[in-house]
Amino acid sequence: MAVDDIHPFDPLTLDEIQTAISVVKKAHGDNVFFNVVSLQEPRKAEMTAWLANPDTAPRPKRVADVVVIAPGNKVYDGLVDIADAKIVGWKLLDGEQPIITMEELQLVEHIVRKDPAVIEQCRISGIPAEDMHKVYCDPWTIGYDERFGSTARLQQALMYYRPDVDVCQYQYPLDFCPIYDADKQQIIAIDIPKIRRPLSTVPPIDYHPEAVELRGGYRTDIKPLNITQPEGVSFTVKGREVEWQNWKFHIGFNYREGIVLNNITFNDHGDVRPIFYRMSLAEMVVPYGNPEHPHQRKHALDQGEYGAGYMANSLSLGCDCKGSIHYLDAHFPTRDGGLRTIKNAICIHEEDSGILFKHSDFRDDSVIVTRGRKLIIQQIFTAANYEYVVAWIFHQDGTIQPEIKLTGILNTYAMLPDEDTHGWGTQVYPGVNAHNHQHLFCLRINPNVDGPNNTVFVNDALASDAPVGSPENFYGNAFFCRRTKLATTGASMTDYSGATSRTWEIANTSKLNPYSRKPSSYKLVSREVPGLLPKEGSLVWKRAAFARHAVHVTKYRDDQLWPAGRHVPQTSGEPSRGLPEWIGDGTESIEDTDVVLWHTFGLTHFPAPEDFPVMPAEPMSLLLRPRNFFISNPVMDVPPSYASTPSQVAAGNQGVLNAADKMSKLAFTNGGSCCASNGTNGVNGH
Amino acid sequence: MAVDDIHPFDPLTLDEIQTAISVVKKAHGDNVFFNVVSLQEPRKAEMTAWLANPDTAPRPKRVADVVVIAPGNKVYDGLVDIADAKIVGWKLLDGEQPIITMEELQLVEHIVRKDPAVIEQCRISGIPAEDMHKVYCDPWTIGYDERFGSTARLQQALMYYRPDVDVCQYQYPLDFCPIYDADKQQIIAIDIPKIRRPLSTVPPIDYHPEAVELRGGYRTDIKPLNITQPEGVSFTVKGREVEWQNWKFHIGFNYREGIVLNNITFNDHGDVRPIFYRMSLAEMVVPYGNPEHPHQRKHALDQGEYGAGYMANSLSLGCDCKGSIHYLDAHFPTRDGGLRTIKNAICIHEEDSGILFKHSDFRDDSVIVTRGRKLIIQQIFTAANYEYVVAWIFHQDGTIQPEIKLTGILNTYAMLPDEDTHGWGTQVYPGVNAHNHQHLFCLRINPNVDGPNNTVFVNDALASDAPVGSPENFYGNAFFCRRTKLATTGASMTDYSGATSRTWEIANTSKLNPYSRKPSSYKLVSREVPGLLPKEGSLVWKRAAFARHAVHVTKYRDDQLWPAGRHVPQTSGEPSRGLPEWIGDGTESIEDTDVVLWHTFGLTHFPAPEDFPVMPAEPMSLLLRPRNFFISNPVMDVPPSYASTPSQVAAGNQGVLNAADKMSKLAFTNGGSCCASNGTNGVNGH
Repeated sequence: MAVDDIHPFDPLTLDEIQTAISVVKKAHGDNVFFNVVSLQEPRKAEMTAWLANPDTAPRPKRVADVVVIAPGNKVYDGLVDIADAKIVGWKLLDGEQPIITMEELQLVEHIVRKDPAVIEQCRISGIPAEDMHKVYCDPWTIGYDERFGSTARLQQALMYYRPDVDVCQYQYPLDFCPIYDADKQQIIAIDIPKIRRPLSTVPPIDYHPEAVELRGGYRTDIKPLNITQPEGVSFTVKGREVEWQNWKFHIGFNYREGIVLNNITFNDHGDVRPIFYRMSLAEMVVPYGNPEHPHQRKHALDQGEYGAGYMANSLSLGCDCKGSIHYLDAHFPTRDGGLRTIKNAICIHEEDSGILFKHSDFRDDSVIVTRGRKLIIQQIFTAANYEYVVAWIFHQDGTIQPEIKLTGILNTYAMLPDEDTHGWGTQVYPGVNAHNHQHLFCLRINPNVDGPNNTVFVNDALASDAPVGSPENFYGNAFFCRRTKLATTGASMTDYSGATSRTWEIANTSKLNPYSRKPSSYKLVSREVPGLLPKEGSLVWKRAAFARHAVHVTKYRDDQLWPAGRHVPQTSGEPSRGLPEWIGDGTESIEDTDVVLWHTFGLTHFPAPEDFPVMPAEPMSLLLRPRNFFISNPVMDVPPSYASTPSQVAAGNQGVLNAADKMSKLAFTNGGSCCASNGTNGVNGH
Repeated sequence: MAVDDIHPFDPLTLDEIQTAISVVKKAHGDNVFFNVVSLQEPRKAEMTAWLANPDTAPRPKRVADVVVIAPGNKVYDGLVDIADAKIVGWKLLDGEQPIITMEELQLVEHIVRKDPAVIEQCRISGIPAEDMHKVYCDPWTIGYDERFGSTARLQQALMYYRPDVDVCQYQYPLDFCPIYDADKQQIIAIDIPKIRRPLSTVPPIDYHPEAVELRGGYRTDIKPLNITQPEGVSFTVKGREVEWQNWKFHIGFNYREGIVLNNITFNDHGDVRPIFYRMSLAEMVVPYGNPEHPHQRKHALDQGEYGAGYMANSLSLGCDCKGSIHYLDAHFPTRDGGLRTIKNAICIHEEDSGILFKHSDFRDDSVIVTRGRKLIIQQIFTAANYEYVVAWIFHQDGTIQPEIKLTGILNTYAMLPDEDTHGWGTQVYPGVNAHNHQHLFCLRINPNVDGPNNTVFVNDALASDAPVGSPENFYGNAFFCRRTKLATTGASMTDYSGATSRTWEIANTSKLNPYSRKPSSYKLVSREVPGLLPKEGSLVWKRAAFARHAVHVTKYRDDQLWPAGRHVPQTSGEPSRGLPEWIGDGTESIEDTDVVLWHTFGLTHFPAPEDFPVMPAEPMSLLLRPRNFFISNPVMDVPPSYASTPSQVAAGNQGVLNAADKMSKLAFTNGGSCCASNGTNGVNGH
């Protein structure tokens, strides 16, 4: 690919990854491992200049951000200038563990199966030595364990058994937990609980076709539903830049955040208005609520520890995605310095979104009804047992809707049949304990609402203070929106308030709406905001500090991207890396400047048998809505399905606009294409 | 229609309405008006017996619930036995005003235009007498005004102007408010504000095609998107009973609640399990937050005052509804004793719902991915300026999702250009003040979770009390779900807590899940729960008492249906009718018995110019989810799009189940039907 065809936000191409690898190997020998070879985010000042003048401004350099492990388990953060093919940064780390790679994970199970101490524990559990090939493990990073610290690279092996290779292992958890040293490639300890819980002997429940057939087979009453776009799609893709319905943005992707949306703008009647410079899920944490040892180590920060990009599924047309779909691939290094591609890591498609707006006049049934569309940019990543379906949904009215659906399989632990779980978990199947947990995601937004200098406000809906019967509030109905400016990083640490329907507003106080006189803004409307249940001072609270509050706001600085720190595995949380460092002492001004808003949202999950052995997708979403950004409804120029005015109705419906979808049919007749009049026999309601 | 073909939950047929009308006229003369002729809900004891034994149990009688206005403005509540064609109940009301009918509303504008005092106020506003045909009014019920009380039937005329018949009137509000006496058919007073705000002279902004063409025309870049079901739909409809994907329920409909869902059951592997006996939106209130007189009168209880059924739109194939659609009509009396039908008042269709569940094994990329469907029962009603799109969404996994989308037009009031609205409203267009308001809906559920005796619990997610570092909570991560039984009507009055992710659980404590040992339940997961902003003691708080709390629970009694009272217009709220009467002194037990749960949810709306002149649809929804109701994932038997097991992958993908949707295509190539393997080149993520 010609250098000039590469957009500065594009992920590194295969050639660029290869270049970086070659440069490093040339300098440091062949015997190095590559945990990361990824795009260093362009410096914002350069990028902003280039975006304003792509033909004349200097093109930001392509630099690879690398994490390399050299012999002796020396870990380096490096930067490689691609064009110049040279290392421009190289730093030895001390006591930091880089992201876990897929190759490292694949290795653990083999070693676990051969370890004599593990074999002995399996025997105690009821698994004979000759059946060790039926023993499996999900090799999580250890997280943090104060007995071991951060110098040695460690994983905890969550243990399972499969009586047959196709059986869902999560119904046969084992009660002990080997600790694996990745440097030595051996088991160095096993956490053995006081109460032993031998292997369950309950027959399995499975979701694969053979199991379903044994239970009576699949449903045969689901009729096909076809979604087609015979004239093609309404979006265009040039490289990685998408345009659709006034939206324009660049789709980035990296090993840890997965999808990154860059330079989101909206064409407002010819005026291309910036909205967000960059938006992504920057981190997440899944803390489990069982205080018994060693379950406190279960609080995966899946993005910093394993990577939403590294774990991305290769999406499949007609399965994961239905309709007319465009795909983008993802390219990564392999650990030993090769190259790999996840085909179809990202999908793009549009969907009908139902009624966009409608109004009828009760006097004469004159009516307008207009249907809407939405555009979806989606990926799925598998974090061992769980699947996360992450969608970035764009609406024609300027709303952006991040949505996450949880599916896959619960994390499970052994239990004695009908054992008392003490409220820390639920028996979802005999002998299977699914612990309480949360899924908390950190949405990172670097806004650019009508320009880079923005201010964040908290909005609370409040009743007037004036009492009922007072002159100011005689009938007691008065209420208003209280806007509180978040002027400093300290003040920015705010939580959700259900009682006040709290929202956050990202405003450009220099640009007042000419009608409302309120600042042009995007409002964060987020209702699944549970708050971090692990307490202040807890291990999770220290390691995943971003989750302490619903919102933090910091001043923009290059490279402040990942709120739990750059290298997450085995951080102790003392000190807390990432966001707390950037918040600092809380005094920094974040008023009318380039800011980053970090929003933590998610769910608290108390499992139930419905979730097992695989979970029906549970959705959560939030909205970023334009408020006082536009001067009027921005979608009046979307063609209606039907429109009649009072004068047209009075003239017997002469000249009405009738564009009803002709492919729609009555469900139970063969009546041809529909009559599309909004005919009501004059009886439409009030 | 043969009597035996009429299901006891069916709305009255046209013949039955005719019979009731004839019976009443015969007894009371022709000179009577019919505000209501509707099905009296069958007595539950009889209905339950019949549902259990439809062939042998006595069929519940068909009785019409009528509201009749006789000469002298005497209002009667009546009951008419249809089969016997006789009146079996007849009661004169005193000081109660029945629902406003469409015919009453249509009349007001004509009278307003001719009233000399109104003409004078229009002249003062800048409208000459010869232009009175350009003056319009939305004739709301007066609500409650203490100067006038409830004996005379009154409406308040919200005044508007249209320079041309096709112009959106809401941009030209007039500042005075005539009070109309419906008995006398004349204007009896006009509320004239201290500050006069003459008619705006700002040029109009409109959304009809001609206006859009003048602004540059419609978008031409939206490509068709077709949704078709060439083999028909997956649901069956027998009369008004729907069956789809293990669901079975009856669709009722009446003049005030609109859609009613009766006898909802789920076929769990041959065991037909009851879930809800009846579910509907039973009332709503839209309180405005401007304390200045007379805006406190703006708090429409649209369902009790005008009727979601009476105001129902006639839905249009290919416009309101896209795909393969089944419609049901609605039949009502006319005020003068005729009959009317709203064709296509209710639509039923299914949609693809994205991924239902998915799991991949990181070791070998063996995978299952299954797509889901949802069934939607929908209506739209127009309440003067606003539209409400009400959808009842059924999911295959047992979840029921009520969803409401708000669209239509903001209520507006006059303002001087750039006048200070004092935070009570927003200038959404020059001279147009849109006041703060809430939309609050009351969901009424008579549950039947595995039987009629249920108990409601509140669930709160809480951190353990035990401090970090204590033996019970050493690492500080412990959290659990606290379940609090709502044992009495008094205890049942509960509010939302965002901090504890509060949910409510409708449980059958006699039926424990065999695995989790928790009661079979349906959980109410509702996050748009703003709380009533008008204060305690306010007019709205008195009249719309259901909105005081997120949840109330009462003991089931026949005819306790409408939580703001049976006859809502002009109630004073002293005493508060409906729900407070049923809550009583709060001591009644609601434990393990037939209960009704009343849930108030909605939005607080601070308008912005984006909402004008017509509002892009704003959605809200809540979930009713089965928890500990099923013993495992209830949708494993939905056919997957693709399924491969580890043994199949090891055998080179021999025998995998590949049912990828062949109609799905790549957006930008002509490549034929897709390759549907979840082929990853062995590089699927962790």
